[in-house]
Amino acid sequence: MSEPCIFCAIIDGEAESSLAYADDKVIAIMDLRPVRPGHTLVIPRTHAVGLEDLDEATSSHAWRIGQRVGRALRRTGLRCEGVNLFVADGAPAGQEVFHFHLHVIPRYPGDGFRIDADWGSPDRDALERDADAIRTALVGLDHS
Amino acid sequence: MSEPCIFCAIIDGEAESSLAYADDKVIAIMDLRPVRPGHTLVIPRTHAVGLEDLDEATSSHAWRIGQRVGRALRRTGLRCEGVNLFVADGAPAGQEVFHFHLHVIPRYPGDGFRIDADWGSPDRDALERDADAIRTALVGLDHS
Repeated sequence: MSEPCIFCAIIDGEAESSLAYADDKVIAIMDLRPVRPGHTLVIPRTHAVGLEDLDEATSSHAWRIGQRVGRALRRTGLRCEGVNLFVADGAPAGQEVFHFHLHVIPRYPGDGFRIDADWGSPDRDALERDADAIRTALVGLDHS
Repeated sequence: MSEPCIFCAIIDGEAESSLAYADDKVIAIMDLRPVRPGHTLVIPRTHAVGLEDLDEATSSHAWRIGQRVGRALRRTGLRCEGVNLFVADGAPAGQEVFHFHLHVIPRYPGDGFRIDADWGSPDRDALERDADAIRTALVGLDHS
């Protein structure tokens, strides 16, 4: 790596964190800039940037722990009436630390978290073309 | 169920969809109101509302397929320079169809997708308290 990775430093015990969970494959720590208290990051111990280089076994384990943390959040004293699970893969998707992490975000009405987009409404032909393109690319993945 | 579920209807072949992927556990279809073309939903065939009632094996399989669809999107002709994976669990988290689904969203600079929040910056003591609460709740899950 060209520059030090803060998550690798945390995993190596060289930087501070508040640990909600740990096993041999992942840790879960509190986000320093939470959407709301309880906002947690599930982070694989292995350094991988994102969806492209994170092996599927580790990735799906991280997801499983994310699901559990989401369920746990509803059982804390922290306010949590819904949960978002969120991954940003690549800078254009909002990734800021280039070591894969899954956000687990407690939600409730009026919590200040806002998502907006210029939602499209393509016709069926356009949707079929997009589905086709993805189906073809998925087959390509199987053979790569 | 008290009212018909649109995703169950799609899975049962009673409602139209544009299919990007299918196996015995999940389907992936194009979102009718995409953030950008290529926006896909990975949906378990079994009806489950969300993180609480979706079994972990199905859930982590859906995630694995979501990862693959995200990688595939970067290999289509569709514009995709980043990917968001997103789950809304519960109405306060933005869930609109109450059958679990994982959004896979292609992203690029200036794509009109916006996330904003009143980000906090709690002190270390507050973070430690939140981590403690989650750790305790996770142990409770193991015994429930």
